[in-house]
Amino acid sequence: MMLTSPIVNTYPLSSYTFGTKEPKMEKDTSVADRLARMKVNYMKEGMRTSVEAILVVQEHNHPHILLLQIGNTFCKLPGGRLKPGENEIEGLKRKLLSKLGANSPSLQPDWQIGECVATWWRPNFETVMYPYCPPHITKPKECKKLFMVHLSEREYFAVPKNLKLLAVPLFELYDNVQRYGPIISTIPQQLSRFQFKMITA
Amino acid sequence: MMLTSPIVNTYPLSSYTFGTKEPKMEKDTSVADRLARMKVNYMKEGMRTSVEAILVVQEHNHPHILLLQIGNTFCKLPGGRLKPGENEIEGLKRKLLSKLGANSPSLQPDWQIGECVATWWRPNFETVMYPYCPPHITKPKECKKLFMVHLSEREYFAVPKNLKLLAVPLFELYDNVQRYGPIISTIPQQLSRFQFKMITA
Repeated sequence: MMLTSPIVNTYPLSSYTFGTKEPKMEKDTSVADRLARMKVNYMKEGMRTSVEAILVVQEHNHPHILLLQIGNTFCKLPGGRLKPGENEIEGLKRKLLSKLGANSPSLQPDWQIGECVATWWRPNFETVMYPYCPPHITKPKECKKLFMVHLSEREYFAVPKNLKLLAVPLFELYDNVQRYGPIISTIPQQLSRFQFKMITA
Repeated sequence: MMLTSPIVNTYPLSSYTFGTKEPKMEKDTSVADRLARMKVNYMKEGMRTSVEAILVVQEHNHPHILLLQIGNTFCKLPGGRLKPGENEIEGLKRKLLSKLGANSPSLQPDWQIGECVATWWRPNFETVMYPYCPPHITKPKECKKLFMVHLSEREYFAVPKNLKLLAVPLFELYDNVQRYGPIISTIPQQLSRFQFKMITA
């Protein structure tokens, strides 16, 4: 049992390099399409398990989270759905490579998947999720896990051309459910148990 | 680094016994008094460090948190301020004994203080706290840490006569900042990384 707060080495945004790669289109063009596809997949494969990454950098001595922005408003964490039976850690590495890794093998990331930070449950084929499986729900439709990812001092990110990669400070996310939704806006509370060791090059 | 979710054995509320003891009065009768006392103490001792306990029981197969209710509305976690230089774990044990332990040595608790679940910072002598130390704040006035406390299957709680001990379900706390405030209402998100193993006697 870990009694002290885990330490996370946090490097400046400027120590990372950002390039672009081919677009990664969303599979669905509407929320209704997304929920319908989720239902079809549930019939075939059972509960959906998804994994998402929290990548932390620093600017002005304050932790920032890397978010992918689609269009002008919607932000999401890098990650996605596991294949049936796929290991969470391996699946998250696969998703990170697909979302943010370079195509060139020599530039590919060796990101360390760390602590599970949160788990969210989708009880029905609806958008609402909860940080617990609600009572009387015996067949949740999705379980989403957020993991801390430990970055090295130098990394190369290849960002799909249709997306923007933003570094958003914790103070911007905090208490901002309107802009970031219930999952991303409570990341500051979930990370508060960590000690961010700010490393300046 | 812990990659799997920690398991918390969670016992039914009915397996615990509740008695009463002498009242524990609040030191301050108003928020203004409380902030004024905090300022006086800060001048003498520097940043206040406080520790609070998350005690989890189950009812109807869903985790519930034990909260102390003062009057008819205000709820708080058991805990309090550390003495200058006091160890966090020892200090939280001392506070739990004072708030919820029996006076009789044979009934005194042996609660296991577990993981740090959250850290909150008070930048100024004001009520607002943040789950990070805000940028440009070099002298925060308080750091409050919340710890998971692992209860055994049987425990005796002695509740001060002026307080009520409530078992509040996670689904009641979640997204209920109006009733429980920003710290207690996000406990469900902070506990979502744990696996609650519901043990029925």
